[in-house]
Amino acid sequence: MPLNHLIRDGDNPDITEERQKATFSTEELAIEIYGEPLAQRRREISAEVLKRPELLDDCPHVFLDRTTKVENSMKKTVAVMEKGSEICDFTSREELGHLVCEVFGDDGFPLSIHFVMFLPAIQGQADDEQAEQWIPRAMRLEFIGTYAQTELGHGTNLRALETTATYDKRTQEFILHTPTVSAYKWWPGNLGKTANYVIANAQLYIDGKSHGPHNFLVQIRDENTHQPMPGITVGDIGPKFGLNTNDNGFLRFDHVRIPRRNMLMRHSKVSADGVYSPPVHPKLSYGAMIFVRATMIRMLAHVVLKAATIAIRYSCVRRQGEIKTGNGEVKILEYQTQQHRLFTALARGFAYRLVGDEVKNLYEKIAEEVKHGNVEQLADLHALLSGMKSIVSYDSGKAIEQCRMACGGHGYSHASGIPEMYAVEIAGCTYEGENMVMLQQQARYLVKGIHRLAHGEELSTMLQYLANTSNNKFRIGESGVDLENALILALEYIARSTIERVTARLDSLQNKGLSAENAWNENAVELTRASRTHTRLWIARCFRDRVHRIENHAIRSALTDILELFLTYEVVDMSQYLYQGGYANSDQVAQVKDAMYKLLEKIRPNAVSYVDAYEVSDTELRSVLGRRDGNVYDNLLKWAKSNPLNRTEVLPAVEKHLMPMMLAAKSKL
Amino acid sequence: MPLNHLIRDGDNPDITEERQKATFSTEELAIEIYGEPLAQRRREISAEVLKRPELLDDCPHVFLDRTTKVENSMKKTVAVMEKGSEICDFTSREELGHLVCEVFGDDGFPLSIHFVMFLPAIQGQADDEQAEQWIPRAMRLEFIGTYAQTELGHGTNLRALETTATYDKRTQEFILHTPTVSAYKWWPGNLGKTANYVIANAQLYIDGKSHGPHNFLVQIRDENTHQPMPGITVGDIGPKFGLNTNDNGFLRFDHVRIPRRNMLMRHSKVSADGVYSPPVHPKLSYGAMIFVRATMIRMLAHVVLKAATIAIRYSCVRRQGEIKTGNGEVKILEYQTQQHRLFTALARGFAYRLVGDEVKNLYEKIAEEVKHGNVEQLADLHALLSGMKSIVSYDSGKAIEQCRMACGGHGYSHASGIPEMYAVEIAGCTYEGENMVMLQQQARYLVKGIHRLAHGEELSTMLQYLANTSNNKFRIGESGVDLENALILALEYIARSTIERVTARLDSLQNKGLSAENAWNENAVELTRASRTHTRLWIARCFRDRVHRIENHAIRSALTDILELFLTYEVVDMSQYLYQGGYANSDQVAQVKDAMYKLLEKIRPNAVSYVDAYEVSDTELRSVLGRRDGNVYDNLLKWAKSNPLNRTEVLPAVEKHLMPMMLAAKSKL
Repeated sequence: MPLNHLIRDGDNPDITEERQKATFSTEELAIEIYGEPLAQRRREISAEVLKRPELLDDCPHVFLDRTTKVENSMKKTVAVMEKGSEICDFTSREELGHLVCEVFGDDGFPLSIHFVMFLPAIQGQADDEQAEQWIPRAMRLEFIGTYAQTELGHGTNLRALETTATYDKRTQEFILHTPTVSAYKWWPGNLGKTANYVIANAQLYIDGKSHGPHNFLVQIRDENTHQPMPGITVGDIGPKFGLNTNDNGFLRFDHVRIPRRNMLMRHSKVSADGVYSPPVHPKLSYGAMIFVRATMIRMLAHVVLKAATIAIRYSCVRRQGEIKTGNGEVKILEYQTQQHRLFTALARGFAYRLVGDEVKNLYEKIAEEVKHGNVEQLADLHALLSGMKSIVSYDSGKAIEQCRMACGGHGYSHASGIPEMYAVEIAGCTYEGENMVMLQQQARYLVKGIHRLAHGEELSTMLQYLANTSNNKFRIGESGVDLENALILALEYIARSTIERVTARLDSLQNKGLSAENAWNENAVELTRASRTHTRLWIARCFRDRVHRIENHAIRSALTDILELFLTYEVVDMSQYLYQGGYANSDQVAQVKDAMYKLLEKIRPNAVSYVDAYEVSDTELRSVLGRRDGNVYDNLLKWAKSNPLNRTEVLPAVEKHLMPMMLAAKSKL
Repeated sequence: MPLNHLIRDGDNPDITEERQKATFSTEELAIEIYGEPLAQRRREISAEVLKRPELLDDCPHVFLDRTTKVENSMKKTVAVMEKGSEICDFTSREELGHLVCEVFGDDGFPLSIHFVMFLPAIQGQADDEQAEQWIPRAMRLEFIGTYAQTELGHGTNLRALETTATYDKRTQEFILHTPTVSAYKWWPGNLGKTANYVIANAQLYIDGKSHGPHNFLVQIRDENTHQPMPGITVGDIGPKFGLNTNDNGFLRFDHVRIPRRNMLMRHSKVSADGVYSPPVHPKLSYGAMIFVRATMIRMLAHVVLKAATIAIRYSCVRRQGEIKTGNGEVKILEYQTQQHRLFTALARGFAYRLVGDEVKNLYEKIAEEVKHGNVEQLADLHALLSGMKSIVSYDSGKAIEQCRMACGGHGYSHASGIPEMYAVEIAGCTYEGENMVMLQQQARYLVKGIHRLAHGEELSTMLQYLANTSNNKFRIGESGVDLENALILALEYIARSTIERVTARLDSLQNKGLSAENAWNENAVELTRASRTHTRLWIARCFRDRVHRIENHAIRSALTDILELFLTYEVVDMSQYLYQGGYANSDQVAQVKDAMYKLLEKIRPNAVSYVDAYEVSDTELRSVLGRRDGNVYDNLLKWAKSNPLNRTEVLPAVEKHLMPMMLAAKSKL
């Protein structure tokens, strides 16, 4: 009985051969990733979806124009709301999340912001009376909400948002207003055509005095006609790189009046007579932002693992070129360059996915503490997530592109599914805090760490390694030093020395008389680099700890190969920092490379089984190249033949334009 | 009189302010880039296009579905063929190229492969009689041709192509046949719906004996009805990451008979009685491939410079955040992180663009020599172009993505124009030879160089630096050593030491008994790295030589800043290799970084003027963010409002699906 449980009759023999080589049970690895009963529930949900045509696409989503994509996803939304509870437990975030992936993929759907931001914002920021009034209606989908913060002219700098909410004591109303074109709300998901309610972020003014940005619940479309309410201009912002199923929107308020009690008042309040009460703890407002950043890590990792699934499976059915002349064409996965592209992507995918779980758990733990008034670790978490979201979004994007390119020309076709995955995933570099800004946020925390150390103050657990000055030689290859430890210490050194260097440069510029702001800006690039080294260390340690906790021996061994590949790759990729202060020499770096190349060979026989164990169904994968059965070429042809351009043998535009041109050219003679 | 000639009334004052700071004449830099009279002719052509609505799009191309995109481009093709010669000199490749950029952008158009590959293939491979028969008809556009080589199952490995052309002595015909699904021709541009003729690459069989791949002219559609000819199955391969205006196609031959004289017979021949004559010099078949690779460098660089134009202009009208609290929000280009992203992209764009000219000249020189039977430098050029195409395609892609992300959320919108630029440009990593294969091709040449050196044989000019063992210490900062020279020497060292190391590793594995093929594969990743270092050195030297030749002092000085930034960036980016064998220490690398950051500051005042001087018109740029006038926000709003999703206030799909769902939820209570 093969350990890979995805072997079926009729599969491409080239992929079956791979599955027969598995040295671990793919079901056991799936349980390690998803836990029980979720691993089993995911399969059941996938099977149920397949039985319900109303949840499936009539044709590949990539064949549709935007309007049809949006329509199709609205239709499926209704079907999910009607029948979904027969398939999955709606109270389980994980089960529901899986159903959404199966039915909608990751290009957006009409309720995504309603459930991911609108409802959580109300739950977190409405007072009890407001929550009681709004949440049940929102849960029943009597209306669809979204969250409107960014404006045409302002994203990251919230304090400069221009939308105003002016309190009118006389009528006890707020007047929402968009004073300029650049103040138009811009980007909120599902705002353009779907939502009829928004939580709008606006500068609160009372008696001419500003109290900064606050959130307000505003009805923007009529519940019966869906026409914009008086004073509201709303629409879709147009096509984007990806996420085109989502009607990201714009919104203008022209002196729109809402009742006083439509301001979300759990933390800040405005009384009927216009007295403002600020929140007890200003950091509480971090909450929502941190929540989204904590959850997005797993989501980004999920895309990498989907891309790796496609590219690794395809690389076992694609044969191209001979390694030894006359021995026949080989599977392209035999090439070291292909293994290097794909297995490092696989390793990052697994690392980010499992570390994403840890981050989510950490978030939940700290959120619980915050509820009990303990905000001690909030700054640590906030800094960490700023870095994490940056590293994971950017490096995942690179990994996905490597997977795509590794599929050659067919990777470029939407038949592979990877171009859309990249376009969706890479948005993560920009949303929820632009990466360069995020990295600098974390850098402030790191620089502060070095300064605390210099003043003999205590460091949080996360920064203890900054004090470890005895770690000053790369110990790879020394007897009694295992590879994993040597690499983790190397990553600690890389982070420590980089943070120390930039802090010293920063201090020295200030000592020379430069203002703190200018000194910061002159070091901004190096600060982002320092921030990256710290985050990558944290990810590496967290991944290692996660792998060490695995009890199943075969699974721990399988993931240890992935972990070691991940660590060698990270060290090689940052080796320019490893030479700082003479920590390592180039022969030692060559040793790390040798270890990395050996790991590629070691992982090779299990490659398909690793991605099989991640268990993304064909429905969710939406990829001809990545099909479980490996029957790629016939299906590529079928896919191509069914695309809209082939609806007529002769394109009407050819008849109308090109044929007359060619015939005229002939007749001129 | 400001030196930047793009200042107009009504421009955004933030961008005018930038233009007033120019320290060089943008017209003079344009002349340096394009030469005269082309610099002027380009402006005239742009102005003429603007006057002819039939050459302009009715709405942004990104609002259209694929079928409409294709139709629109066919319509414009007819207009260009009718009126284009009034606007530009069709015999000037540069003028025509510029007109195509203005009218079609770079997403493809119906005649691109006809002119870029089909005609050149006939010109190069048809014998005189064939040329006389076909070229005039092709030039007059009596038919539209394409070039069909890759198959569903085979791209890079031409010898494994499956399509056959079997000579039938009896009828003096070739029988073109597609024996399997994987043998379908797949990917040729304009094949799906446009072309009615193809040059098909097929394995030539005579009397059961294979003579390898040859080219055949095959009519695939009727000239009067455009219906597929008997035995032909043809269609479009479906949507792709980019290039969706191009109907890349599939093609199947079912025993299609063509006359013997439809084989292209300049180099190889088949006589009426079936006697095969091979080409005199097998390397002559490189020609077409090398030509496309030589021209694609400039094209890829052009996309980088367009993206840089957009992002740099936008970064001067976008204000976000304060550097010093209370001093007001700054242009985002004031941030060092932004300068680092954009100016390095700018530097790479200029480097690749100008080096692209040099490569084109080198190609023409060597092609001329080849015509006279001298094929000596062909191998050098072939190796160089394999590396160039890989480096420029990949690093340009990274630069474009940095430009896009530097525009924040708006960069992600198709309003920026950059997402499509990336999708089009990055295809260059795959077409015309997959990068990993290309880099290894060049690596073979480099390893051979080291072996020749070891045997005391002479090296070609391109490889002389491999012998320079006296270059063994990084001399930056030493008195009498200028930055530029120190950096070029550093790049030479990086390349030499990397090539030496991998060759030694390769030799040592073979000495241990590994076969040559397996030793190669076990070093394949390091070989691609070595290949990259060599190519990047070559680009750097070539760029330096180009800048040194500039006579206009102000322009040379302006481009010297760009050159120095390019060099520092390359050295920092490859600094992990700089430590090999103790060539440099980390303080020296820090010096290079300091120089790089200083150059960012130096370039800052001229940033807009550099991109202005590259002179991409608004028509060609197709970007709301990159508009010359800097009036971004109003136009973003206008663009968004006009997108198809806003055709109706209430989307029909909302009425049909979401409204009933919400109303039902309300009525349930």
